[in-house]
Amino acid sequence: MPLGFPLFSGCNIENICYPLGVCAERTAIQKAISEGHREFRAIAISSDLQDDFISPCGACRQVMREFGTNWAVYMTKPDGTYVVRTVLELLPAPFGSIGWQKIQ
Amino acid sequence: MPLGFPLFSGCNIENICYPLGVCAERTAIQKAISEGHREFRAIAISSDLQDDFISPCGACRQVMREFGTNWAVYMTKPDGTYVVRTVLELLPAPFGSIGWQKIQ
Amino acid sequence: MPLGFPLFSGCNIENICYPLGVCAERTAIQKAISEGHREFRAIAISSDLQDDFISPCGACRQVMREFGTNWAVYMTKPDGTYVVRTVLELLPAPFGSIGWQKIQ
Amino acid sequence: MPLGFPLFSGCNIENICYPLGVCAERTAIQKAISEGHREFRAIAISSDLQDDFISPCGACRQVMREFGTNWAVYMTKPDGTYVVRTVLELLPAPFGSIGWQKIQ
Repeated sequence: MPLGFPLFSGCNIENICYPLGVCAERTAIQKAISEGHREFRAIAISSDLQDDFISPCGACRQVMREFGTNWAVYMTKPDGTYVVRTVLELLPAPFGSIGWQKIQ
Repeated sequence: MPLGFPLFSGCNIENICYPLGVCAERTAIQKAISEGHREFRAIAISSDLQDDFISPCGACRQVMREFGTNWAVYMTKPDGTYVVRTVLELLPAPFGSIGWQKIQ
Repeated sequence: MPLGFPLFSGCNIENICYPLGVCAERTAIQKAISEGHREFRAIAISSDLQDDFISPCGACRQVMREFGTNWAVYMTKPDGTYVVRTVLELLPAPFGSIGWQKIQ
Repeated sequence: MPLGFPLFSGCNIENICYPLGVCAERTAIQKAISEGHREFRAIAISSDLQDDFISPCGACRQVMREFGTNWAVYMTKPDGTYVVRTVLELLPAPFGSIGWQKIQ
C-alpha cells in the first residue's frame, strides 16, 4: 500500500431501532481493532454535507480516545477541503486518563 | 475459500466507558456490511464460558434481525459442541416487521 | 397509587446522532433504577403502530433481563388490545445466566 | 425547591452486556426529558475519583449538546472542588449544527 500502513474504511450502519446503529468512524475503528491493530495515525471523515466540515459525534470521539489522544482527525467537505484536529482537541479533558488535572 | 462465501471475524471491543464498547457479533456483522454484504447465512459465537453455550445479547440479536430472521446462529462451547437456532427463534416477535400479528 | 406499587413512564429520546438515542422501555427502566428500584412486575409498551402489537427491541429485552426473566411485557395496540409475554419468552436463552444449558 | 427549577439525579446503570449500560449523565438527562423538560441550565457530575475532576464521556457530551451548547457542566472531586465548562467547550465543533464553519 502506498501509504505504508493499513487503511480501514467504514460506513454508517443504521438499524430500524435507531440506537442500535453505529457511525462510520466506529465501524472503521472496530474493523481495525478486530484485525489486530491498536495504534492509529489518522482518521478521515467524509459526508455529503455541503456547508460545513463533517465532525465526529461524541461517542466516536471517546472511542478514538481509547486508542490515544494525539492522533489526527481529518474533517472534510465534498469539495475536498478539510480541517484537522487531534483527538484531544475534539474531546478535551476526556473521560478516562488525561483529565482536567493534567491539562489545566 | 473452502466454504464458497466470505467469512468475517469479530471480537468484543471494550471501552473505559462501558456503554461505548461493542460485542463481537456486531463487530463481525458491521465489518461485513461495510464491505458491501447484506445477506448472511450463519454466525458462530465462541467464548471461554465452560458451562454453557454462549448466546448473543439482545442488541446483537436485533442487529442480526436487521438482515433477516431466518439465518443460523451457532452458539458454541470451548469443547466444540454447539446449539443452533434461527435469528427469529432467538428474537421472537422482533421489533420491526414480522411481529406478533404474523407469528401468533 | 391504586396499583400499590410505583409506576415509571418513559419515551423514545432521539439524537441527531441516531445511535445515541434511547428507547422508551430503557428510559422507563433506567428511571426506576435510578430511583432505587430493582424489582419489576410488568412493563407496558404502546405506540401508534396500527397493524401489530408493538414489541421491544432486542437491546431493551436484554436490559429487562438484567432485572429478572419472569416478569411481564405487555405489547399493545392503539385499540387497547395486547399480548403479554415474559421477558424470557422474548429473549430465550439470554446472554448472561439462564442460558441454553438450563432451558433445553 | 430552593433553586427554583427542577432537579433530576442519575446513576450509572451497568449491564452484564457492557455496551447496554448507560452513564449517570444520560440517565439524569433522559429522566428530565421524559418528564417534559427540554431546557437545561447545568449538570453536575460526581464520582469517587480522588485525583481528578470527573468528566463526562463523549457520548454524554453529545446527548447534552442535543439540548444546547451553552449550558454548564460541573465536574467535581470528592473534596467538593470543581471545574465548570460549557457543553461546547467539552465538545468543540459538535456533530450536528454549530460545526467548524461557524466557530473557526
